[in-house]
Parts: sequence; C-alpha cells; structure tokens
Amino acid sequence: MGAVVRLRIDLSYDGTDFSGWAAQPGRRTVEGELSTALTTVLRSADPVRVTVAGRTDAGVHARGQVTHTDVDVDLLAMTAGRSDRSAEEALGARLSGVLPADIVVRRVDSAPPGFDARFSATSRRYLYRVADDLSEHDPLRRHDTVAVRGGLDVAAMNEAAFQLLGLADFAAFCKRREGATTVRTLLAFAFTRLADGVVAGTVVADAFCHSMVRSLVGAVLPVGQGRRDPEWPAEVLRAGRRDPGVLVMPARGLSLEEVDYPADVELAARAEESRRRRGPAAGAR
Amino acid sequence: MGAVVRLRIDLSYDGTDFSGWAAQPGRRTVEGELSTALTTVLRSADPVRVTVAGRTDAGVHARGQVTHTDVDVDLLAMTAGRSDRSAEEALGARLSGVLPADIVVRRVDSAPPGFDARFSATSRRYLYRVADDLSEHDPLRRHDTVAVRGGLDVAAMNEAAFQLLGLADFAAFCKRREGATTVRTLLAFAFTRLADGVVAGTVVADAFCHSMVRSLVGAVLPVGQGRRDPEWPAEVLRAGRRDPGVLVMPARGLSLEEVDYPADVELAARAEESRRRRGPAAGAR
Repeated sequence: MGAVVRLRIDLSYDGTDFSGWAAQPGRRTVEGELSTALTTVLRSADPVRVTVAGRTDAGVHARGQVTHTDVDVDLLAMTAGRSDRSAEEALGARLSGVLPADIVVRRVDSAPPGFDARFSATSRRYLYRVADDLSEHDPLRRHDTVAVRGGLDVAAMNEAAFQLLGLADFAAFCKRREGATTVRTLLAFAFTRLADGVVAGTVVADAFCHSMVRSLVGAVLPVGQGRRDPEWPAEVLRAGRRDPGVLVMPARGLSLEEVDYPADVELAARAEESRRRRGPAAGAR
Repeated sequence: MGAVVRLRIDLSYDGTDFSGWAAQPGRRTVEGELSTALTTVLRSADPVRVTVAGRTDAGVHARGQVTHTDVDVDLLAMTAGRSDRSAEEALGARLSGVLPADIVVRRVDSAPPGFDARFSATSRRYLYRVADDLSEHDPLRRHDTVAVRGGLDVAAMNEAAFQLLGLADFAAFCKRREGATTVRTLLAFAFTRLADGVVAGTVVADAFCHSMVRSLVGAVLPVGQGRRDPEWPAEVLRAGRRDPGVLVMPARGLSLEEVDYPADVELAARAEESRRRRGPAAGAR
C-alpha cells in the first residue's frame, strides 16, 4: 500500500437488523457492511478497515455515528474518476449506491491531522425514547421507541438523573470487562416530553461502558413510574455494583445522536490522553 | 343478533406490510386484521365488520384513522367481564393484546347517535414526508419518508399549492372510477420544513378520490425542484385530465393524520348529506 489518507465518515443507521456495530463472523453488522462497501467501491485488494467513535450494541441505532478509515490515495483518486466532485464526495455517493437502505452515509471528509474517530472524541450524546401513553403510541416509531406502562413523572426523573452527574465509577451501570476502567464523567442526563408525547432521555458522557446508557435509563424509569424514590439511582451508583432492581432497557429505544471533537489543533493531544487513560479495551462506546 | 351498540374505534398503523385498508382474499390488510381481531375478542359467531373513514391504499400509513363497528351488546358485556373498566376500555385492551405490532388501537368509545365513521366526517387531513437533503436522511424514518434529489424551494411549493385550494373537479389528480364524482373541496395544502429537515406537506379536503394526495404532492414537487413554474399544477387541474408530468408519489411517504367530525347534534345530518352527494362508490378515502 502506498501513501494513505485518513477519511472521516459520518453515518446513520437503523440498528434493528444488525448484530451491533462490531464485525462478527456470520453476523450482519454495521462495521461488516461498511467495510465491505468501502472495499468494493475502492476496489481494494485488502479489506478496508474502519475505526468507530461509538461501538453500538445489537439493535441500537445511530443518527450521528463517526468513523475514520485510512485509504490508499491512488485508490481514492481512481474512485473519483473524472467527475468534477471532490474525491470524498464521489466516494460518499458511491458508498450510498452499494450500502443497504438501513445505513446512510451522511458525509465523507478528509480528516484533519491527528484525528481519531474513537480517541479524539471528547463526548458522545445518546437519546433514549420511551412512550408512556399507549393510546398515542405511533406504530411507525415502534422500531426506535419503547412502550412502558404508567404516565411518567418527568420532573421526578430529572431530579433523579441530576444526582448522577459528574465524575464517578459507574461500575453499577456497566457490564464488567477485564482490565477496563468504569470511571466516566456523566456530563448531561435529562428527560423531556416531546411534541408527540414521547419522553426522550438525553445522556452525554466523555465515554460509555457496555450497556451504561440503557442501565442509567432503566434506573431512572421506576422513579418516573413512582415505584422508586428520586434518590434511589444515586444510591445504586454509590453501592458500586449491579443492582437487580435496575432493568437494562431494550436496545431499540437507544440511538447515538452525536459525537463531539475538540478544535482541530487539540485532536492529537486528546487522542493521546484518551489512549493513556482508557486503554485499548475500553471507552469506545 | 340481539341489540347492537355502535362503537367508534380510533387506530394508527404502519402501512408498510399491508395491502392497504380494504379486505382482499389472500392479502394482509388492515381491515382484515381488525375484523379478525374483533371477531376473536368478542367471540362472535359471525365476522364483525368495520366501516372506515379513509380507505388507505397499499403502503399508506395512518396515525389518526377512525372506524365504526356495530357489536352485539351481550357479546360486548361478556368481553368486559368483571373488570372495573368500561366495556369499551376492556375491548380496547383485549384488541391490543391480539392485534399485530403494526396496528395500534388508540381508543374505543361508544359512538354518539347518528355517527358514521365514513359519512359523518367533514374532512380528512393527510401528511406527506419528503427528505431532500440526503446527507440528513434518517434511516429510521425511511418507512414513512421519501427521499428526493435537489434542495426543495418550500416557498415556491406553497405558491403552487395555494392555487389549488377550493371547490373544483380534481379529475386530473384522480384515478377514474365509474359513477364516482371527482368534485372535492381542497381546504388546505401547504408545505413546511420540520426541525429534522424533512419537508412535510399537509393536505386537507372534505374527501379524497383515489391517489389524489399522492398526485397533488407529485404535481407540486417539480415546482420545489425548479423544474416547473408555480402556475403549472393549477393548469393541470384546469385541464381536467391526468397529466403524464404528474408523478404519483410513493405510498410510504403518506399518512392519514386526522379525521374531523361535526358536533354530535349534526352527525346524522352530515352523514345523510354525504351519502346523497357522493354515493356509495366514492368519497371514502
């Protein structure tokens, strides 16, 4: 392989029919589909690999996923051909032509120096959608909305969510992994009732461990239903171990909405710091 | 069958996997599923029949469909059993239990005297969703949103749509049916760009003929793309015959959002007037 250029690829996907992001033999995954599409479109002899900002679990969606990939400059130039579009635009159009309907390439750009989709990210924003008025439940949104019983008290949920903010060990809300830290900074956690009646929970953190967003929502939901006090989720957090009272919410209600990066000049330094703090086994969700 | 009571049943459905509203042998239809569910839940010896406000075509969705059905009072009472809910609430809960996930019963009420879901209706409101920025296209909304090329000029579309309002013969936008009038009153037709970037067209009329909403949107879309003048759709209307330049838009972008009825005291008079004007073969869309 000759000189390479790093590309940033932003995408959205409907996670319903995927076994999550990460490629697995014999399974349909977003990484697998994207990697195959890139390899096909670039006519690369070797599989084109992709690094992702947030490794979503099976059934989890994304509206603002970010990836990077390093491609051979000659292959990229050939893909663009004689079109008057940039090579990146041409690649995006070609990818859209071969990808299945449940993956949308939002844009392809050349990445700024030092950019790493995973380690340069400063925060990830997730959204969780819950419908509590079954008579208003929209069957067209059943793929990204979870129906629950009982009118939710959004103010009580926000009182509970607020107490979880900040730097803490989120082991109580994480599936354990050997050698991976569960210390995270929860930057935002709040619920709001949308115009269509759906209760949407926004969760922002520097990074997430496995099943963390779904466990956080599952801890606060019983507060909204009046089955737990607003103090309970913070007590679970402090106890530091998984609590059987915390339901891990279904994947289909969850979507990765946005990944934030620092200004271009800080990209490399941020990536260096993330790698050092979280290590290769963690932090990519 | 003994004494009967007329029920109003409001429902939503994802039209993707249905061959439209109307029951057809060997096809999966909304009417077929609802009729079967009612027959099952009420343990009726005869199939329970349903009358609908808007007969949606294959692939068309509904968030505010209205139906009525006449059920035996004894069967209804038995369905409610000894629960402390009303018989109508109990029936709604039982229907939800047997209906597939793509049909949602929003509520079941006893209908006011003179109510006819089809003929008492004063207007129907439809919504059509078009995504013109493919990089923002949300794959989770691909089942109810149609992607088109070219940034749409919403102001030009509204200029064109405005000229179609009022009482007219909409033959140019209708599939012909023997003996059915194509005279309708278009009460509202306007486009707006939603927060997520999608262009939504709202269409309200006293009633619609076959494929009328999809043809109206298909006439105005080329105006938004700059391929036709804002005066063109009104010229097609006046010509009074189907124009090959008018694309009948795909069904999946369309949803029946709301059906309007007059105050209870006017229900019977309105039904009588509709039956006289439109006849049994028309007007039910």
